[in-house]
Amino acid sequence: MSLRDGRLQKPISEGFRGMNSSVGVDKRLFREDIRGSVAYARALRKKGIIGKDEEELIVKGLFEIEEEIEKGSFLFRDEDEDIHMNVERRLHEKIGDAAYKLHTGRSRNEQIVLDERLYLMRVSDEVEKKIVETIRSILKKARKSIDVVIPSYTHLRQAQPVSLAHLFLAYCHALKRGRERLFDYRKRLDRMPLGSGAVAGSSIGIDREFLKTELGFSELTKNSIDAVSTRDFILEFVWICTEVCITLSRMAEDLIIFSSDEFGFFGIPDELSTTSSLMPQKKNPDSLELIRGKSARVTGNLIALLTLLKGLPYTYDRDLQEDKEPLFDTADSTLSVLEVMRGVFHGLEVKKEGIKKRLERSNDLFFATDIADWLVERDMPFREAHRKVGEVVQYAVKEGRALRDIALDEYKRFCPTFDKNIYALFDYERSINRHDVPGGTAFRRIEEQIAALESSEA
Amino acid sequence: MSLRDGRLQKPISEGFRGMNSSVGVDKRLFREDIRGSVAYARALRKKGIIGKDEEELIVKGLFEIEEEIEKGSFLFRDEDEDIHMNVERRLHEKIGDAAYKLHTGRSRNEQIVLDERLYLMRVSDEVEKKIVETIRSILKKARKSIDVVIPSYTHLRQAQPVSLAHLFLAYCHALKRGRERLFDYRKRLDRMPLGSGAVAGSSIGIDREFLKTELGFSELTKNSIDAVSTRDFILEFVWICTEVCITLSRMAEDLIIFSSDEFGFFGIPDELSTTSSLMPQKKNPDSLELIRGKSARVTGNLIALLTLLKGLPYTYDRDLQEDKEPLFDTADSTLSVLEVMRGVFHGLEVKKEGIKKRLERSNDLFFATDIADWLVERDMPFREAHRKVGEVVQYAVKEGRALRDIALDEYKRFCPTFDKNIYALFDYERSINRHDVPGGTAFRRIEEQIAALESSEA
Amino acid sequence: MSLRDGRLQKPISEGFRGMNSSVGVDKRLFREDIRGSVAYARALRKKGIIGKDEEELIVKGLFEIEEEIEKGSFLFRDEDEDIHMNVERRLHEKIGDAAYKLHTGRSRNEQIVLDERLYLMRVSDEVEKKIVETIRSILKKARKSIDVVIPSYTHLRQAQPVSLAHLFLAYCHALKRGRERLFDYRKRLDRMPLGSGAVAGSSIGIDREFLKTELGFSELTKNSIDAVSTRDFILEFVWICTEVCITLSRMAEDLIIFSSDEFGFFGIPDELSTTSSLMPQKKNPDSLELIRGKSARVTGNLIALLTLLKGLPYTYDRDLQEDKEPLFDTADSTLSVLEVMRGVFHGLEVKKEGIKKRLERSNDLFFATDIADWLVERDMPFREAHRKVGEVVQYAVKEGRALRDIALDEYKRFCPTFDKNIYALFDYERSINRHDVPGGTAFRRIEEQIAALESSEA
Amino acid sequence: MSLRDGRLQKPISEGFRGMNSSVGVDKRLFREDIRGSVAYARALRKKGIIGKDEEELIVKGLFEIEEEIEKGSFLFRDEDEDIHMNVERRLHEKIGDAAYKLHTGRSRNEQIVLDERLYLMRVSDEVEKKIVETIRSILKKARKSIDVVIPSYTHLRQAQPVSLAHLFLAYCHALKRGRERLFDYRKRLDRMPLGSGAVAGSSIGIDREFLKTELGFSELTKNSIDAVSTRDFILEFVWICTEVCITLSRMAEDLIIFSSDEFGFFGIPDELSTTSSLMPQKKNPDSLELIRGKSARVTGNLIALLTLLKGLPYTYDRDLQEDKEPLFDTADSTLSVLEVMRGVFHGLEVKKEGIKKRLERSNDLFFATDIADWLVERDMPFREAHRKVGEVVQYAVKEGRALRDIALDEYKRFCPTFDKNIYALFDYERSINRHDVPGGTAFRRIEEQIAALESSEA
Repeated sequence: MSLRDGRLQKPISEGFRGMNSSVGVDKRLFREDIRGSVAYARALRKKGIIGKDEEELIVKGLFEIEEEIEKGSFLFRDEDEDIHMNVERRLHEKIGDAAYKLHTGRSRNEQIVLDERLYLMRVSDEVEKKIVETIRSILKKARKSIDVVIPSYTHLRQAQPVSLAHLFLAYCHALKRGRERLFDYRKRLDRMPLGSGAVAGSSIGIDREFLKTELGFSELTKNSIDAVSTRDFILEFVWICTEVCITLSRMAEDLIIFSSDEFGFFGIPDELSTTSSLMPQKKNPDSLELIRGKSARVTGNLIALLTLLKGLPYTYDRDLQEDKEPLFDTADSTLSVLEVMRGVFHGLEVKKEGIKKRLERSNDLFFATDIADWLVERDMPFREAHRKVGEVVQYAVKEGRALRDIALDEYKRFCPTFDKNIYALFDYERSINRHDVPGGTAFRRIEEQIAALESSEA
Repeated sequence: MSLRDGRLQKPISEGFRGMNSSVGVDKRLFREDIRGSVAYARALRKKGIIGKDEEELIVKGLFEIEEEIEKGSFLFRDEDEDIHMNVERRLHEKIGDAAYKLHTGRSRNEQIVLDERLYLMRVSDEVEKKIVETIRSILKKARKSIDVVIPSYTHLRQAQPVSLAHLFLAYCHALKRGRERLFDYRKRLDRMPLGSGAVAGSSIGIDREFLKTELGFSELTKNSIDAVSTRDFILEFVWICTEVCITLSRMAEDLIIFSSDEFGFFGIPDELSTTSSLMPQKKNPDSLELIRGKSARVTGNLIALLTLLKGLPYTYDRDLQEDKEPLFDTADSTLSVLEVMRGVFHGLEVKKEGIKKRLERSNDLFFATDIADWLVERDMPFREAHRKVGEVVQYAVKEGRALRDIALDEYKRFCPTFDKNIYALFDYERSINRHDVPGGTAFRRIEEQIAALESSEA
Repeated sequence: MSLRDGRLQKPISEGFRGMNSSVGVDKRLFREDIRGSVAYARALRKKGIIGKDEEELIVKGLFEIEEEIEKGSFLFRDEDEDIHMNVERRLHEKIGDAAYKLHTGRSRNEQIVLDERLYLMRVSDEVEKKIVETIRSILKKARKSIDVVIPSYTHLRQAQPVSLAHLFLAYCHALKRGRERLFDYRKRLDRMPLGSGAVAGSSIGIDREFLKTELGFSELTKNSIDAVSTRDFILEFVWICTEVCITLSRMAEDLIIFSSDEFGFFGIPDELSTTSSLMPQKKNPDSLELIRGKSARVTGNLIALLTLLKGLPYTYDRDLQEDKEPLFDTADSTLSVLEVMRGVFHGLEVKKEGIKKRLERSNDLFFATDIADWLVERDMPFREAHRKVGEVVQYAVKEGRALRDIALDEYKRFCPTFDKNIYALFDYERSINRHDVPGGTAFRRIEEQIAALESSEA
Repeated sequence: MSLRDGRLQKPISEGFRGMNSSVGVDKRLFREDIRGSVAYARALRKKGIIGKDEEELIVKGLFEIEEEIEKGSFLFRDEDEDIHMNVERRLHEKIGDAAYKLHTGRSRNEQIVLDERLYLMRVSDEVEKKIVETIRSILKKARKSIDVVIPSYTHLRQAQPVSLAHLFLAYCHALKRGRERLFDYRKRLDRMPLGSGAVAGSSIGIDREFLKTELGFSELTKNSIDAVSTRDFILEFVWICTEVCITLSRMAEDLIIFSSDEFGFFGIPDELSTTSSLMPQKKNPDSLELIRGKSARVTGNLIALLTLLKGLPYTYDRDLQEDKEPLFDTADSTLSVLEVMRGVFHGLEVKKEGIKKRLERSNDLFFATDIADWLVERDMPFREAHRKVGEVVQYAVKEGRALRDIALDEYKRFCPTFDKNIYALFDYERSINRHDVPGGTAFRRIEEQIAALESSEA
């Protein structure tokens, strides 16, 4: 029995059928849909709308359908529009008219948001778990990189020497906030919508508290119109994932640049690289480029959802069918970029020797702040010290010489305060350990950070 | 022979394989890919790099592969990464080492942009054709609606009486500009990139003019770095489609509102409507809602592409793999919303009687401008006339009476200039025909517009 | 003393000066900047880097500058680039070289994120407060609208009768979640970044705990690289505001449609309407249209920020200057649309009489679910009942008659189960009270909802 | 006389006034607005609606107002809502009631689109001119860089040697397409909307052809509803600018990376750099970072406009007020990033010596394709040659030796075909000149490209 036949005289037009059917997309929710229907059948029984036999028939039929779908033997039909009607149709084939009672007082408007919430309860847990695994993978690499000194960069120009671990820990903290957001989000997600009907609430007095418990939720949605109209519980998940992906895109950018021949800090593992079909020498960081690229896709999904909802009148409108592909794609993409980034850090080669050699060949400019601070310690106002050292640097660059190779009398030309002690400043460890505040790059502070993260992300 | 094995020591990691393989998406380009390879084989022969026998073997093998894919018997393998390498691998299975010559001096970087350009040459034609069909469908309905008077709306409030055809023609003009854009775009698309190599240009002196002719292009791309780096030929198509979809979303909004019970102007054909699973009376305009919804999806695609490209260094980066899903989805969505909108206008019921009755029941407020113009003709400055009539309207609204039911002495209270001739103003046809300028709603102007569009969109 | 003069030989180019200077935008942060500098001066004193006299001079100078800016007598100079350097320059004019000590060990990289966090602590409170005021305004109107029966709409088609308060409460719940998000966000915002230096942490051992207390924060940021690099604390605020604005855009859409002449449910207050420059009768709901329109702007801001950050290498890059305009504009827009929406509900006229008359004139189709439920109570499987009633509706629509006007023998033609009791179903109150579950539209449930919201949003 | 007073009883509410007034933004269009009004006054005179004296009074008054605004002595008032009403109010102050005739039969709906089109005719010309200047600046640098050999990069990994000019020319071609799009766009922009009235067309038979000529347009808009409803002429401009900015963001990314110490190809001119407030050595490429950052802002503007229009019902809605800020900001941003990029190329230091030294120190991997081609010339199928060379490269990388330093007998271990001639392959010029096809990097092809661009962009 097609839903259409009672009210509408004509079958659906050819050109519209494809767009109208969502089952190709929403069939992914089959487990959630069946789980919701099983609970609903039990609630109908509890209410006396169906008998014990009917309940058993329905539940057994639904589980068989779940198995058929899992095994791939279920025939999805476009003319049944969506996962809900496909299941109902098949249930009727299996158990006859009892199937037609399952929808009593229930609307697809509430069914779809139930399915989506159940899906998100599971998937947001998976994303959280994957974030934690990624953080741990970075943390392990950080622990091994404490004594590796690299230049930090601002504006992609060498700034000050830092422990490589310090950079890696920055990544951990950024990802950790994604985890915090998921945790907060969970409260808003964990609200059970069934019993909202099409819009006005169940007309058969279904026991919503029973459904809540049966389906493993903590709270009920509080307003039936709100329950079927809002998609903010999808938006919030997609936003959180987008932020995570944008963070990963920044990390990927760092790793791509730092693993170039010209920088030479890292080697990307072979198993996460590819080569060129034409140029035999190429070893390309495709894994990182795809992480960066996926962030664009997820951003597109967020915008698609926001634009979808903008100006949409209450309550349910069919536009909302379009919420699922951006949602699924965001979840899949986020899980996979996290997994690939986890793998990148697992296999990342830190080229300690290469980094050291490059530092030695460098022209020491990133000690300039240390020199300015040295002048400040000798009572020069900072802004003046900043300027003096700037002039020294300009001179050294023009000469093409390293700061440590500028002779003392040359230094004195810029400022008579300089004395031979300044040459002791050209020492990475000394420079690093001067940044000894909470969150600073001094080695003991790095150890503190690692210990704290290891215990919070255990 | 895997591409990887020479340069890289380890097989690809499990977690990365799925992301690295694009064949699930780019296999859609198999016809274009094979067409490009056939032309390339011919050019290799022409250059003496392969012999006549090899050319024939290759071309025959490629056509067989095309048939296998069409029939669904081709086995796509993720480990071959993409459509290009899947075809090469299969060709080698079929014809042996000659297959390994096909890639001589050719890079996937140029191959993919060739495939995409060939695809877009075909698909942009299809979109253009579908726009024209949609315009014609609207035009037909416009021709039948010339004498149907409706209120035009600004701010969703009744403004002035117009011919319904006038509104429909506005839709045609908006869609027509989409067609104009596709036409302009075509020039930039129609440039043949093959022979660009990975980035530096072909190193084997392949005959690009020959390839151009063979593949049906009008021009060559002019710089090999530009050819493999740019995706603006995809962006421009997606932008044009986005604009078309946004226009369709506005039309859909009009039709959804105007076909509500409360407005009652239109009936949406049953074959483009659906019903509710719970509420038996519902006849919902899902086709129009989905048209509106799809505009969000396409907007998301445009943003995904822009964000993808933002800040990407030259030349080819693997991020660019992510260009295809937004492209394909945009093309598919645009073609389908155009087809559905064409169908909506084909079947749209204009409820002439209902519209007429509602106009008669209205309180005539939309004649207010005619009254103000009448005062202006009697030498009152327009701004003063506007104010006087505004006061009359405020009075009529408070009284809950129609403007034609306000007595002359009441009118005179607001302005002594009024006389009994004003009652002749409450005439739709008269009002409409006063707007007698090019592009205005006077009936003869509507006829002009229809005739012009019928001849330009024939 | 210009920052540039030490290190760079040439003055800034004409064409770049405008883009390089951000003071036109970031001067809005002057209070936060000065507050941060006062705390920093105290910390420098505590550390012994400046003396008591110098501290007093600096603090006094800073407060004078704050006053100058407030009074509008401060001269902002583009060549001083930003608010930080404008303040430093002016401080030097006022107190001489002590001013040049204020920046000791401090970087603009940390200064700007401190200023932004202080700004957001204040502004996120304002937004929260405005959300609460808006909820209260809607709640008041809801309390007065409990007994007003309107059709609920799905797909902009009449669905089932509901209490108007039910719809208004749906709005409240949606806004309430925005408030919840701000609350959760606050924890992540409330972290003090000063002492992070340019990137590696303070090199002068500044007392970060002292600064935290002085500036009213609860926690420290934990990693100096993360502290100067991340902008997720801005993104999260903008996302939360975007969601609120999208929700408001949906409410605005409802109110625009429902206040049209054709629907006639509401009158928009004159003080929130405008008229036309040409058509004297127009009373346009511009306030609501602008609320809807602003949601687009805020969405654009969110995208600008996401795209800005995508692929940006760590740590600070100058691109980040572009974070401020989208942030300020989002805060301003959100505050103003909330205020206008609050005003709309304050003045909204609910046209009780008009609504009642329209319901009486309607053709009762929205009782169809009640009829189907009636059949179900008589043991018909719901899907069959749904179909039967669908056929009745199709018949009624074709006949142009209301469901209550269909005679019993006509009903029986579709299903012999019908009897005269069905005519009792055409009763709004009865229908509404059947939806008696938590969150349903039954009047007592509405009372429950209102009471709960009144107490939580008090 | 306030527009509101006739129709509306209450003054505008405090909280809404700010949002309702757009004059703070649209006053930028004062020249266009006055130009439109002057033409309209002439057309009114031609139509006999005003006399010669009145026309002269009005035109003179309008020119005086233009001067007042230019001089800054004009008082804009929020309560007059927009530029149109501010001008009308002031005109009335100056010339009395004749001013109130200027709006006869004219609506702000058509006035604003006229103003916007006039503005865009001017600004799109400016953008085109600035694109040409930028192309020329790059071209000049390209001409001087023909003989500079750099590695080309794919995936930010060295690919093949190319002429630096080749990369610069790729930039030119990409920008040139922006210019082509503006040219095509111009046709759609150059259509005169005045005479469309509020929506239905002029009711006073204004002479639209006369207005067209007077205002310097080539065509009329063809449908009054379309004319006041569409904003695609703004969208298209913003899209074109967005694409240009995205292209510039990619160029900026290249230049930022290539001018890092680690790459060392370029020096950014001092006048386009800034330094750090803390680190005296820093010379940061802020100009390029801001170019990259602005692309995000412009992308946000495009999305704001698309989201604004999505689902908006015909015809004019007040949401459309929000079109102006994204438009103005896009135009300003695009002009300024083009100007800054022009300046960057003007002052860009190409570090020829440094580049040469780095190439000499490199390990020659980017000759791998040349070696593979050499094997192909000796009849090895390309895919096999690709693999052999891949193995050689893997070996060389493991050994840490350059390809030219691998002995012949080592080479022969991988493939016996190798002979001593392969050492002649390690020659940049030879490698470059092998890419001798149209668009390839061979020096003579570069000369061709430059000559062609010099003549087309002259």
